[in-house]
Amino acid sequence: MTESAARSRGAYAKTAARRQRIVTAAVEVFAASGYHKGSLRDVAERAGLSQAGLLHHFPSKVHVIQAVVEWHDEQSARVIADAVAGGLDPLGALVVLLEHNERNPELVGLYVLLSAEATAPDHPLHDYFVRRYAGAVARLQARLEGAAGSGRLRPGVDPAGVARALTALMDGLQVQWLYDRGSVDMAAELRRYLAPLLVADP
Amino acid sequence: MTESAARSRGAYAKTAARRQRIVTAAVEVFAASGYHKGSLRDVAERAGLSQAGLLHHFPSKVHVIQAVVEWHDEQSARVIADAVAGGLDPLGALVVLLEHNERNPELVGLYVLLSAEATAPDHPLHDYFVRRYAGAVARLQARLEGAAGSGRLRPGVDPAGVARALTALMDGLQVQWLYDRGSVDMAAELRRYLAPLLVADP
Repeated sequence: MTESAARSRGAYAKTAARRQRIVTAAVEVFAASGYHKGSLRDVAERAGLSQAGLLHHFPSKVHVIQAVVEWHDEQSARVIADAVAGGLDPLGALVVLLEHNERNPELVGLYVLLSAEATAPDHPLHDYFVRRYAGAVARLQARLEGAAGSGRLRPGVDPAGVARALTALMDGLQVQWLYDRGSVDMAAELRRYLAPLLVADP
Repeated sequence: MTESAARSRGAYAKTAARRQRIVTAAVEVFAASGYHKGSLRDVAERAGLSQAGLLHHFPSKVHVIQAVVEWHDEQSARVIADAVAGGLDPLGALVVLLEHNERNPELVGLYVLLSAEATAPDHPLHDYFVRRYAGAVARLQARLEGAAGSGRLRPGVDPAGVARALTALMDGLQVQWLYDRGSVDMAAELRRYLAPLLVADP
């Protein structure tokens, strides 16, 4: 590696670390106050940067929140992929995802708030969430079709309908859990929903 | 009726009508912008009142939003009660409620947004929503126990668990429906969820 390549690799790592610090700070700020009320000044302060320093990495508030939701979705995808790599079937991996979420209430709160705010058609994340839900339901449907193909899904269960309901159930459970963490066991509720849909030993 | 009683009844009706006009205006304002961003000035303007006139009926923004959510919950309870009075069982009445909601997207949007915002412990509606969810799940559980008692619920179905899941499912479906009204049929999804839990002809 040449000296200049090493320098630029170092600069790249530094930039990536700083962007991640901003995303982490933004999660905290927007989780507490939502997109509209959260301010870039607060994000910059929490990240230990000037506002100009922040704007160097993300030219606007929309860019910051976009990075936050993309990071959140990547995290969720990684949790599922790790669970599947560890031997779980893709539906069991959803239970692991909810268990992961139970350890990250701030992220759950942020997601619940943003997905509600962004139902307004003029919200900067509206189109992102439209695509996000369509993608989430389609991926879940594909997983259910896979489960049907391997005999894991009980015959007669409709993958498309269950994909939509399962997505709704997980969203709704997160809201209730935020209100009453002591009484709501998201993973247990999801297991209870899935059990009658699955064949125990295909 | 004495003249003064008639006068005071007229005044009461006028006050009630004006309060309702404020609640209706508040639904529109807060549905568009949420509790934090919505302003009393906009509510007053839409209701055709001065801000002082509005404050005569509701001394603060919290009082307005409280009236809005109570009105919304009363509406929902009435839709369910009417459906039951019309001969539906209490679970079928939930399908009617979602059909009612499909005709009132603004209200659905308001409810989704407020229930998300109010997960923050310092939100003025937080305690209201904590009680609201506990009450909604308990009422649904009682209805399911009633259905079990009359043989309508399939044996082995747990009323407490289904009450929580059903509440979550309805909440989550409303979010997805707001993003894609063309593809999401809330009532059909609810029917699909309920069907395997019920005995067709008890």
